[in-house]
Amino acid sequence: MATPTISQTLVPGAFGPAVALSCRECGERYELGPKFACEFCFGPLEVAYEFGTVTREQIAAGPNNIWRYAPLLPVPADVASKPNLNPGFTKLVETRNLGRELGIKNLYVKDDSGNPTHSFKDRVVAIAVEAARNFGFTTLSCSSTGNLAGAVGAAAARAGLRSCVFIPSDLEAGKVVTAAAYGGELVAIEGNYDEVNRFCSELIGDPAGEGWGFVNVNLRPYYGEGSKTLAYEIAEQLGWRLPEQIVIPIASGSQLTKIDKGFRELIKLGLVEDTPYRVFGAQAEGCSPVSAAWKAGHDVIRPVKPDTIAKSLAIGNPADGPYVLDVCKRTGGAVEDVDDVRVVEAIKLLARTEGIFGETAGGVTVGCLKKLVETGQLDPAASTVVLNTGDGLKTLDAIEATTGATATIRPSLESFREAGLA
Amino acid sequence: MATPTISQTLVPGAFGPAVALSCRECGERYELGPKFACEFCFGPLEVAYEFGTVTREQIAAGPNNIWRYAPLLPVPADVASKPNLNPGFTKLVETRNLGRELGIKNLYVKDDSGNPTHSFKDRVVAIAVEAARNFGFTTLSCSSTGNLAGAVGAAAARAGLRSCVFIPSDLEAGKVVTAAAYGGELVAIEGNYDEVNRFCSELIGDPAGEGWGFVNVNLRPYYGEGSKTLAYEIAEQLGWRLPEQIVIPIASGSQLTKIDKGFRELIKLGLVEDTPYRVFGAQAEGCSPVSAAWKAGHDVIRPVKPDTIAKSLAIGNPADGPYVLDVCKRTGGAVEDVDDVRVVEAIKLLARTEGIFGETAGGVTVGCLKKLVETGQLDPAASTVVLNTGDGLKTLDAIEATTGATATIRPSLESFREAGLA
Repeated sequence: MATPTISQTLVPGAFGPAVALSCRECGERYELGPKFACEFCFGPLEVAYEFGTVTREQIAAGPNNIWRYAPLLPVPADVASKPNLNPGFTKLVETRNLGRELGIKNLYVKDDSGNPTHSFKDRVVAIAVEAARNFGFTTLSCSSTGNLAGAVGAAAARAGLRSCVFIPSDLEAGKVVTAAAYGGELVAIEGNYDEVNRFCSELIGDPAGEGWGFVNVNLRPYYGEGSKTLAYEIAEQLGWRLPEQIVIPIASGSQLTKIDKGFRELIKLGLVEDTPYRVFGAQAEGCSPVSAAWKAGHDVIRPVKPDTIAKSLAIGNPADGPYVLDVCKRTGGAVEDVDDVRVVEAIKLLARTEGIFGETAGGVTVGCLKKLVETGQLDPAASTVVLNTGDGLKTLDAIEATTGATATIRPSLESFREAGLA
Repeated sequence: MATPTISQTLVPGAFGPAVALSCRECGERYELGPKFACEFCFGPLEVAYEFGTVTREQIAAGPNNIWRYAPLLPVPADVASKPNLNPGFTKLVETRNLGRELGIKNLYVKDDSGNPTHSFKDRVVAIAVEAARNFGFTTLSCSSTGNLAGAVGAAAARAGLRSCVFIPSDLEAGKVVTAAAYGGELVAIEGNYDEVNRFCSELIGDPAGEGWGFVNVNLRPYYGEGSKTLAYEIAEQLGWRLPEQIVIPIASGSQLTKIDKGFRELIKLGLVEDTPYRVFGAQAEGCSPVSAAWKAGHDVIRPVKPDTIAKSLAIGNPADGPYVLDVCKRTGGAVEDVDDVRVVEAIKLLARTEGIFGETAGGVTVGCLKKLVETGQLDPAASTVVLNTGDGLKTLDAIEATTGATATIRPSLESFREAGLA
């Protein structure tokens, strides 16, 4: 087979330093295109790069968003001048109260609720938008019941692309409104989430789906690269150092593997010292196939039927599960899970100690962090980063039953004193 | 009366460049303290400064939050090292589609939904927290049914202060959960919002309220200064230029007057050129006492009973209303209002065109902007900034009735084609 070249139809430099897609399983290479699976072994494709020289100064001079890392992403050099939501460069919060309460010396929360639609999905969708533009796609699409729907709707609106989001028709009213707010097509499918996804796969293979970019299907190799920016930002915000430990939620597992990829790239490029880091994966007990495999010492993931309040992590058959196991093993980390009661406690703990109101996924990571310390798996003396990937405003129902007024009084000082509030 | 001096109990430099409180009405000066009304004329007190030299370079070298402007605020020079939420430096979005649709050439949205608790209230509360620390207050408090409750709860949690937020006991469950999420005291008062406020006033005057900082009452002079940071950021983000026109929502009117104050300070300090700017105030028709006074040519505001979906702006007797009229008159601006139907349309317009899902208050400003252009009051050829001060996730109910799935289909390509989606 001839060396793959970037398609003649693409503008030179359209994908920046990206030169090909390569199969994660067999290494087969393909030219950059809207492909996601290897034709030979069906393995997932990922972006391969030939990086030029990239310096800390060059990055620091860039914009306060993910495009400061454009030389490390499959995007054109002038990406920052195109209409997009400019996500990223969210706060890395040095904890005061949470670290003290958990007995961890140097604990940081990477708070991705600060993104434009308040979840890390804005990062991955932003890269997918650039790929869609490059391939001449006119409709940006996905199936989603939550964060991804908003991220796609908003990014498409700003970019001037049509959007079409598919949801199951029995979705709760509040989630429908959030998904519909950006005014794109929102198509309710009479069926459950699996049927929605099956339909989307059909559509991609049909002429009716021509010109459609499904961000996490035919644009997935590009989309996934957006998660690398979490690694870049954490390292830069720590003063160009890698953290010694990091706790990352697992849905498909892609985010965890891409953060690892980002750290390794920084080392390779000489942007950080090659210091050891341990990667920990976090799942909700009600959807913990990767944690179960880790604890059983298995290399394969047995799919489960999700049953947890952490809906944004509820993927029963996580595509990147085996790669997550590899990363956690290689780096000396672990995979842990916590039940829904602890997820709720952890959401409240993070809010009460640092003023960060996280999504259920943030409850999963903080809850697992606590458990990892308690069980001696995580070193409380080492610098540690925990991810909050979404916003508590989107999962109010998770804490509603246990959160409310602490006192009810009459409008008088007497009643105030009686309640012991003085 | 002797020249006022900063109280001996305060650490030198505790309030940075602030030197006194001065009465907005009669000019009487007071030493810096937890005071809010003039003892002689009952006029509102505001912070008076003696600024040192401040340069653009000095500001640019500061952190990516409001503390880059510490030399212009009543906070100590080392404020950025103290535990707080570090709000501000939110995006100034150069519109593409919205400007085109409204026929405005250079239109920018200052999007304050990017703040830690997703409203501009994080700015004002952050300054109040520093004042509370300076005065040795241990409880941070407010009455609120919305954004302020979350901002106070979160800021206090991070700062390690006790918080106590007062709400009417009949508040909707979702708002109670949002206010309670940060784990401080949340006291439901059996009564309406007026009764809650009356009780708070009683508490401030009682020994039971000793050590309590009510952010928008006894800390109000400091709190209000936080809104100046919107002016500083807009000017810096425009490349150290003032916009020619700006559209600002009116609740109490404080924010509008402080943005004007901020622009004038920048001119005085030589940080921007002294170019003319026109300030436009925006209200919802169902609570438009300032707009009504403006249109009638009155100098006084006649209080109204609010009836609008824009709850965060529903102040029927706006304390700073007369000052708003002054600013709009002096700068050649205007005050406008729009009905709730147009508020909803404007929320959707902003989301559909720029991917920004704003609160009802954002619907009010964008709706008024549209009306101001249509009625020829605003020059579409001049550079214009419109404020979005909060997040659509907090006011989903406003658009729920008119926002939903655009199509419902069976999970088949046939049904997809029938719906005209291909």
